[in-house]
Amino acid sequence: MREDLKNRLCEAVDQKFERQVAFLSELTSHPSTRGNEQSAQGFMADELATRRYEIDRWQIDIAEIQHLPGFSPVLGPYDDAVNVVGIHRSRTQRGRSLILNGHIDVVPAGPLDMWDNPPFEPQVADGWLYGRGGGDMKAGLASNLFALDALAACGLAPGGDVYFQSVVEEECTGNGALACLARGYTADAALIPEPFSEHLVTAQLGVIWFQVHLKGLPTHVAYARTGANAIEAAFPLIHALHEMEHRWNASEKRPAEYRHMDHALNLNIGKIVGGDWTSSVPAWCVFDVRMAIFPGQSIDAAKAEIEQVILDAARDNAFLRNSLPEIVYHGFHAEGYALSRDSSANAASAIAVLDKAHHSVSGVVLQREAITATTDARFFGLYADMPALVYGPRAEAIHGFNERVDLESMRRITKATALFIADWCNTEEV
Amino acid sequence: MREDLKNRLCEAVDQKFERQVAFLSELTSHPSTRGNEQSAQGFMADELATRRYEIDRWQIDIAEIQHLPGFSPVLGPYDDAVNVVGIHRSRTQRGRSLILNGHIDVVPAGPLDMWDNPPFEPQVADGWLYGRGGGDMKAGLASNLFALDALAACGLAPGGDVYFQSVVEEECTGNGALACLARGYTADAALIPEPFSEHLVTAQLGVIWFQVHLKGLPTHVAYARTGANAIEAAFPLIHALHEMEHRWNASEKRPAEYRHMDHALNLNIGKIVGGDWTSSVPAWCVFDVRMAIFPGQSIDAAKAEIEQVILDAARDNAFLRNSLPEIVYHGFHAEGYALSRDSSANAASAIAVLDKAHHSVSGVVLQREAITATTDARFFGLYADMPALVYGPRAEAIHGFNERVDLESMRRITKATALFIADWCNTEEV
Repeated sequence: MREDLKNRLCEAVDQKFERQVAFLSELTSHPSTRGNEQSAQGFMADELATRRYEIDRWQIDIAEIQHLPGFSPVLGPYDDAVNVVGIHRSRTQRGRSLILNGHIDVVPAGPLDMWDNPPFEPQVADGWLYGRGGGDMKAGLASNLFALDALAACGLAPGGDVYFQSVVEEECTGNGALACLARGYTADAALIPEPFSEHLVTAQLGVIWFQVHLKGLPTHVAYARTGANAIEAAFPLIHALHEMEHRWNASEKRPAEYRHMDHALNLNIGKIVGGDWTSSVPAWCVFDVRMAIFPGQSIDAAKAEIEQVILDAARDNAFLRNSLPEIVYHGFHAEGYALSRDSSANAASAIAVLDKAHHSVSGVVLQREAITATTDARFFGLYADMPALVYGPRAEAIHGFNERVDLESMRRITKATALFIADWCNTEEV
Repeated sequence: MREDLKNRLCEAVDQKFERQVAFLSELTSHPSTRGNEQSAQGFMADELATRRYEIDRWQIDIAEIQHLPGFSPVLGPYDDAVNVVGIHRSRTQRGRSLILNGHIDVVPAGPLDMWDNPPFEPQVADGWLYGRGGGDMKAGLASNLFALDALAACGLAPGGDVYFQSVVEEECTGNGALACLARGYTADAALIPEPFSEHLVTAQLGVIWFQVHLKGLPTHVAYARTGANAIEAAFPLIHALHEMEHRWNASEKRPAEYRHMDHALNLNIGKIVGGDWTSSVPAWCVFDVRMAIFPGQSIDAAKAEIEQVILDAARDNAFLRNSLPEIVYHGFHAEGYALSRDSSANAASAIAVLDKAHHSVSGVVLQREAITATTDARFFGLYADMPALVYGPRAEAIHGFNERVDLESMRRITKATALFIADWCNTEEV
């Protein structure tokens, strides 16, 4: 790519950066938690349509994806699970095609009194934008969109087809990205600006979600006996799960990408609900668990061991022995994925193009990182043979209070993305 | 009391017993959980009005009772907290006055799938009536009402004033009974047919309810570290509370009434709620605790020790040390009460009258029992110098699934209550 084009693209990003921050702020103000993504998706579709992208907006149909590899079981209806894709079809087809992917769903804000400002009333201060989802990952959606805008501002369009995806369900199943695959969207590479500090993600973990349901015979507390309490019966099961977590993290179990991390696989008790009356011995308790697995680790084998651990612990418990826990899977059945294991020339080329773009913008070498979370990258990499580059801005407190994203970092990512597009797809005159 | 009057009263109970069971069934079909007592209270008021009792029906006003001994703190409004009293004023005043007390509120049913039949669609089978609240304590309300009906069927009325109380809030605060006291209702004795197997309750425990609120800084589970989880931070606190429970039950701490019980004081973790997303490390958790105290044990001292135990355990915990738990009191601040410690001639007389009535009906000696729960008896006994006789039918699985009450037991209690009224209050021609 010519040096002057790089400069023009970067200048175009700078010129529109104030509008980009305003866009991010507006997008973050849509409280697009699971089941409430429609207003944010409407906003995205309008913004894409204004820019004359062809719009594909559809509701996920479980029947169309549930047989596919990578599908995760879900509880509840998908009435509000709507994906949006904006399509650029290249006139010249002189370059490679690209998927620019981001997720619109955000995790719950938690108790509002723990936020300094309301989570869905974004604030800009000291170079950060604060708000739930600002980092994870609406800044990435903004970066994808305004990188394309930078090309347009230079009178250019990508010289290959580009699919701008705004998907739901990343935070619980990935079924939004899977539905895009099922609808036929593939390309020569995918870029996902998840907030990992301007590093290239070379490996990500798999994730399994499960619920443990405990039931028993309740009674008036006046007649309570030790161990008859469904809430407290959960404690030894949780203890046994942590022992399993410890075993899975043992050094001999770690693949190369995670050799240096002594605790990459985190087991999280994310939710618990039990009982309904202070003076009744609780007859039921449900807790929700997230457990990570390494790339290459089998989901089925992991599930079998999880079930064994829970049932063994339950059989050791007087209360649970006669009323064994029920294990319900809903949410992530996500395999791990390692871009670093993709030995194709296409993957090497995509990484090389991103290396150059990153270095051009930031002046430093693109760092690699194996992350302890999952992303939608797995769908492209594992099930569609596409290199999936996860590369996005720096953010803090994602899934926490006062989540924030570094705006100068978003600016650099936007510039690097514009350069990546122009290089990977080549350009054509509008 | 003449033998023929006893027989006539018992026959009158028998004659109306089918109607009494139908009444109990209809009353049990009103799902009078806390905040939903109005329809059941409406039914009670109608039944009392039909019988020409003077009706007093009023909404509890916190301002009128919160300064009184025995008041328990409440969360939320009292818009639906309505008491009903039906009043009989004796023409002759030849006997003693009496309060017949029962509570209309029932505890939640819990998961419906654990009931053989819907909890608020009462069923009669094999001599039992099944349904939430049938035993605790709508059978007692039925017993009080139909005992008075038995007198009426014999052309008689009590020869002293009788106050038929249907109160709310017994299951969480006792503020319904307290509001009756505050409104001026006192008498020479009170009878409360709580379901304790036709025994006379000679002592009851006090009960304290409290909530423990835990908060911390959440994060994406990818960055979780041991101990940063608000749900799991609850476990050592609960453990410390059980150690306190163990100390409080030590033999040297037990008063005479509970000397023989090695675990009269039960600590119950009745509810827990924490977290809102499986892949977010939970930043908050709230659990609800019920702890019992002995008669004579100070509520203030008990609360001080509870707080000390929780805060000491929290200071031992890396996560909680910098964000100490908040302890919120809502619900029971109930002192223990022992009828057996009432040395008045009035109490001795009331017990003697009940002894006779019980023996006449059942042919066996009235057994005494120190119970491990609380009842509204404490208000009459501790704060109004009235002997409060807790004496009601046999029930099973109160606060549990498939709660049921023994109908023949209710029949005997109704007869004994009729005899007690006729003896204690004497009678007058209608």
